[in-house]
Amino acid sequence: MKFDLQAKDPLSKARAGVVTTDHGAIQTPIFMPVGTAGTVKAVHQRELKEDISAQIILGNTYHLYLRPGIDTLEQAGGLHQFIGWDRPILTDSGGYQVYSLSNVRKIKEEGVTFNSHIDGSRHLFTPEYAMDIQRSIGADIIMAFDECTPYPCDYKYAANSLEMTHRWLRRCCTHFDNTEPKYGFNQTLFPIVQGSVYKDLRVRSAEFIAGMEREGNAIGGLSVGEPAEEMYAMTEVVCDILPADRPRYLMGVGTPVNILENIALGVDMFDCVMPTRNARNGMLFTRHGIINIRNKKWENDFSPIDADSDLLVDRMHSKAYLRHLIHSKEMLGAQIATLHNLHFYLWLVTEARQQIVAGTFYDWKNKMVQILGNKL
Amino acid sequence: MKFDLQAKDPLSKARAGVVTTDHGAIQTPIFMPVGTAGTVKAVHQRELKEDISAQIILGNTYHLYLRPGIDTLEQAGGLHQFIGWDRPILTDSGGYQVYSLSNVRKIKEEGVTFNSHIDGSRHLFTPEYAMDIQRSIGADIIMAFDECTPYPCDYKYAANSLEMTHRWLRRCCTHFDNTEPKYGFNQTLFPIVQGSVYKDLRVRSAEFIAGMEREGNAIGGLSVGEPAEEMYAMTEVVCDILPADRPRYLMGVGTPVNILENIALGVDMFDCVMPTRNARNGMLFTRHGIINIRNKKWENDFSPIDADSDLLVDRMHSKAYLRHLIHSKEMLGAQIATLHNLHFYLWLVTEARQQIVAGTFYDWKNKMVQILGNKL
Repeated sequence: MKFDLQAKDPLSKARAGVVTTDHGAIQTPIFMPVGTAGTVKAVHQRELKEDISAQIILGNTYHLYLRPGIDTLEQAGGLHQFIGWDRPILTDSGGYQVYSLSNVRKIKEEGVTFNSHIDGSRHLFTPEYAMDIQRSIGADIIMAFDECTPYPCDYKYAANSLEMTHRWLRRCCTHFDNTEPKYGFNQTLFPIVQGSVYKDLRVRSAEFIAGMEREGNAIGGLSVGEPAEEMYAMTEVVCDILPADRPRYLMGVGTPVNILENIALGVDMFDCVMPTRNARNGMLFTRHGIINIRNKKWENDFSPIDADSDLLVDRMHSKAYLRHLIHSKEMLGAQIATLHNLHFYLWLVTEARQQIVAGTFYDWKNKMVQILGNKL
Repeated sequence: MKFDLQAKDPLSKARAGVVTTDHGAIQTPIFMPVGTAGTVKAVHQRELKEDISAQIILGNTYHLYLRPGIDTLEQAGGLHQFIGWDRPILTDSGGYQVYSLSNVRKIKEEGVTFNSHIDGSRHLFTPEYAMDIQRSIGADIIMAFDECTPYPCDYKYAANSLEMTHRWLRRCCTHFDNTEPKYGFNQTLFPIVQGSVYKDLRVRSAEFIAGMEREGNAIGGLSVGEPAEEMYAMTEVVCDILPADRPRYLMGVGTPVNILENIALGVDMFDCVMPTRNARNGMLFTRHGIINIRNKKWENDFSPIDADSDLLVDRMHSKAYLRHLIHSKEMLGAQIATLHNLHFYLWLVTEARQQIVAGTFYDWKNKMVQILGNKL
């Protein structure tokens, strides 16, 4: 993997760059649609490429490990082949879902035992096994196995957890560096900074992670319920320590405003289920604010879903039609709303990139964050 | 509406024709995907046009009347405008869903009172109101308001129901002929032959319906649970009476074999929820037989969903991937399977048409009906 910094915003820490993988280039800052179980929910791969211009998507190791399973993925030739996606893929390590989805889990030094949320079967993820699984899935960028602390989290727990996450990281790196990719293209491992909302822990973690000298670095454990100001404070501390010549990935973030503020602090990569999940509930993000398409006020509004957008469904369909589909629980409602939201998120980061390159990001960002949270 | 007969099969009663509406031409025999509530479930309109080559779709009056409602549809400028579909649309009269979906219903000479399955609200459909509603929806082809008798149905009930359906038909025709289309294009009204599985009732009804001299005619009350042989016997009796110079529409039919056998008896138009509904449960129709994609045998089958097909998703995705999506209850599974099944149904009628034009339909049909029911 290669990272080329192309431009810096003069008034913030925002950067524009290019991440190059064996499956192609990614213009940063970038938003990565979440394709949990081998599909970005309600969106076909052709639409991801042609309508959304998605440059990279995520897969969730926990879900893919349980279903279809590693055996099937290996026989398919990896996740790219299995789902028919030839652009870059990033996988998380499975840790976050183990903590949030499985019924019973037990964290030990060795790793985490948990019960499947699908059939209750018992499994053990260790740092080494998380590397093996991600080798088998075959993502271009894979993530270290860590503990994502909840919010709130007491200092002592956060500090102990952080040390274990660092010990796990060493095991991840050793195992990753001693194994080979399985499908003829390169993979790279990103370590993850933890430390909850404690500045000293974040500093300690960021320094440790920077010292591992991986090709890219991630920030985890944010967007888990803390106030946005605490998130930004942690991101700022961490970005100032993580090496500037490598991409920085802020995991699981966030709202459009969160994304712009974190770009301003030096983050290059984002993922979040918000655009896809909220779409299914009828919440649309636009450059003028947020639309709850379920509201009565849209019942007979025959204006386009988004007149500013160049997405086919945004121009072709009215708010009234989308409201009808969402109210009627028709799949097409989720399909159209998801396309809209992902297209908007990709527009947002593409526009942010252009503003960075033009040197106008800071003022544009400050203007946009005033607008994006409006309720339309 | 215009109907041009273009070819007849020498060894059966199959015909190839063209129905011309103000929204374009329909090559018959044709299968019409069902778009119940203003959407063919899980398929976008662009896909219907570009991937499936659907020439006409159905809307259900009962569903559209309840949601989004006539007021919204009128303000939108009719269903075509509301959903963004510029090809022909056919609507049923709402009767069938009143009988099958609503909680409480009472059939009287005036019409049918029923409670909405959505909110329990009370409504009355009369033959006249069914015409008004379909004028407001604005389909190109609209259907008479009838009683669709269940199976089994005793002779006396069927005979009495038939007479009422005929009286209702007169009221439908009078009201339809005394009202105007609302959106600047023509609409036409198809009457419906009933009579359960009683040959004399079917003859009486077909003669009555033929005497109304509408531009096209429909056969209802079949595919409601009767053996296929009884269905074919009724279709044959009725097709021999309905005028040959007008299209014949067999409502709610059916399996691929049902469609081919009824084409051989002189039917021109079909609709059924089977390809869309069964797709969502993982049943795929192919030219070699039926696939239950949920079965374990497809778990590691990485061959294309349908190697014979020219549909993108059929060639792009494996059986193993589609199985995974359906098992995981991912919307994309329903999306891909629905595209596949509709594409197959449209291929089937297109191929039937070519065989009719070539004069080879009868042998081809007999060969296909041996294969299509195979379980793969």
